[in-house]
Amino acid sequence: MSTHEKRYVGIDLGGTNLKLGLVSADGKVLRRLSSPTQAKHGPAHVLERMAQAVRDLCKAAGIGLEDVAAVGAAAPGPLDTKEGVVLFAPNMPGWRNIHVRDALAKALDRPIVVENDANAAGYGEFRCGAGRTVRDMIILTLGTGLGGGIIIGGRMFRGHTDTGAELGHTVIKYGGRRCGCGITGCLEAYASCTAVVARTQEELATGVASSLAGREDITCKDVFDAAAAGDAFADHIVKDTADYLAIGITSLLHVLNPEMVVLTGGMMGAGDKFLNLVRQRVKETAFERAASSCEIRWSELGGDAGIVGAALAAEAFERTGQQA
Amino acid sequence: MSTHEKRYVGIDLGGTNLKLGLVSADGKVLRRLSSPTQAKHGPAHVLERMAQAVRDLCKAAGIGLEDVAAVGAAAPGPLDTKEGVVLFAPNMPGWRNIHVRDALAKALDRPIVVENDANAAGYGEFRCGAGRTVRDMIILTLGTGLGGGIIIGGRMFRGHTDTGAELGHTVIKYGGRRCGCGITGCLEAYASCTAVVARTQEELATGVASSLAGREDITCKDVFDAAAAGDAFADHIVKDTADYLAIGITSLLHVLNPEMVVLTGGMMGAGDKFLNLVRQRVKETAFERAASSCEIRWSELGGDAGIVGAALAAEAFERTGQQA
Repeated sequence: MSTHEKRYVGIDLGGTNLKLGLVSADGKVLRRLSSPTQAKHGPAHVLERMAQAVRDLCKAAGIGLEDVAAVGAAAPGPLDTKEGVVLFAPNMPGWRNIHVRDALAKALDRPIVVENDANAAGYGEFRCGAGRTVRDMIILTLGTGLGGGIIIGGRMFRGHTDTGAELGHTVIKYGGRRCGCGITGCLEAYASCTAVVARTQEELATGVASSLAGREDITCKDVFDAAAAGDAFADHIVKDTADYLAIGITSLLHVLNPEMVVLTGGMMGAGDKFLNLVRQRVKETAFERAASSCEIRWSELGGDAGIVGAALAAEAFERTGQQA
Repeated sequence: MSTHEKRYVGIDLGGTNLKLGLVSADGKVLRRLSSPTQAKHGPAHVLERMAQAVRDLCKAAGIGLEDVAAVGAAAPGPLDTKEGVVLFAPNMPGWRNIHVRDALAKALDRPIVVENDANAAGYGEFRCGAGRTVRDMIILTLGTGLGGGIIIGGRMFRGHTDTGAELGHTVIKYGGRRCGCGITGCLEAYASCTAVVARTQEELATGVASSLAGREDITCKDVFDAAAAGDAFADHIVKDTADYLAIGITSLLHVLNPEMVVLTGGMMGAGDKFLNLVRQRVKETAFERAASSCEIRWSELGGDAGIVGAALAAEAFERTGQQA
């Protein structure tokens, strides 16, 4: 590693784990670090752990803090990214109006940017992952929840008050399943990993025949594995999931008409057969001109997308003086 | 009218009527003209009528064609706006890959721009109507269909292949009503004027009690009027319509997080009581930060939005050399 090459730190702040990466200006992860968030101890404790993790990462990489050009933190929303404030984080106790940027800047004396976690993942894919050849893309993070990120003309799209790109909270079924956010019919309530498990368990409770019947702690992966092994019930859950996702993507194509849709998160374990189902349904449903000009792909960076995107958002800010 | 002031012509190309306006650079309609499109005679005939209508408008205003700085045409989509081509217009026979820009430029020898009709209406409202104080807005045209337009950062958002902002074709109810476009559950299938009439007639056919029962040729306005006059059935149709619209708007707020949503088209006849119902439901449903930062308003330009927006899109192109 040349000492002349600029390096950035990306932090992915999750409710369970802090993930950090030392990242080069072209998005290579030079060193990783992961540690428990310990969110139950409150925001001040977590902020101190974040700062300490940056120091630990630098130490492990044999560099000083002063060798880090800027630090990017990807955090759950809603945020005020201009001010670097987490307005509210439902999975972390006490997180209301927490000034992440100012706290980290004070602790580390480095330029800090704070971005929405799904937007950061999208930016990472855009800069050096699946979307590196396009200028207009969206990302859907299919995990515990269903997050979204939008890149328009090579820049992160945040909306007027940083509340844009909440793509999991677009309604695909009026009067349908209740989402964790309180709205009925959100895409997240149908196509997140959590929703796949919930839909499976609800149908199993009605007594359907399946290799999954009677099992406790079913995971999303279990459902996809059972489908792959020939379980007809699991196959129906998988096909419905592809349908729901395809309907959500169709609506997004008709609003944003992107060049690419990147899918990431835990559901990547479903593999290419599932991806092809989604592609096929979008092709059948969406306007031809929107569908044929849009590629639907799995993420390339996978679990690194957040740290890479956060680091490169910091890089862009340090380079241009503007938000990425 | 000063001869030194630049003037533009806006054309709103509809399946039934051609509407034209001579428009000042600040969006004032100086003179109007309307004539039948005569779409049944095919594209070449319509293009000739468009060119002749521009000449007629100039003559009526006492100016020459050379006094028109540029001409904007708002046309039904899908389009290729960069090339000024209508790719397909479902309501006009023979309209496939019709080069509107080149045909009008040849006939009139003026700079020509071609824009999607709903996007043009949105741009008109943005430049000198309800949205003149904002930079990020969307418009929904609630009429025979349900069109959409998006302004981001003061510019029309078209998407990667001009297929963005098809806001009527976002799915609000998976497996729901079939839309004219073939998709099931589109917002247009629930909340256009046509959909209001269809929903009313379907329920009336089941024998519900209503002042509308037994009437033929019910219009959207009839339904709103009956609700205002105390008809409980019509009131339920109106409230459901507000609900459907609010769900569609909620999804759009969560994707685009605009400062303003402008509603226009035939449904403006429903008045402020209906608008307030929509506002209330969006406030109840959408994320607080997205809803509280977004104003929902009726159009100010009404039926002029298309001609004003088309003219000002031409003005912007003539001034900057770039699409508006």
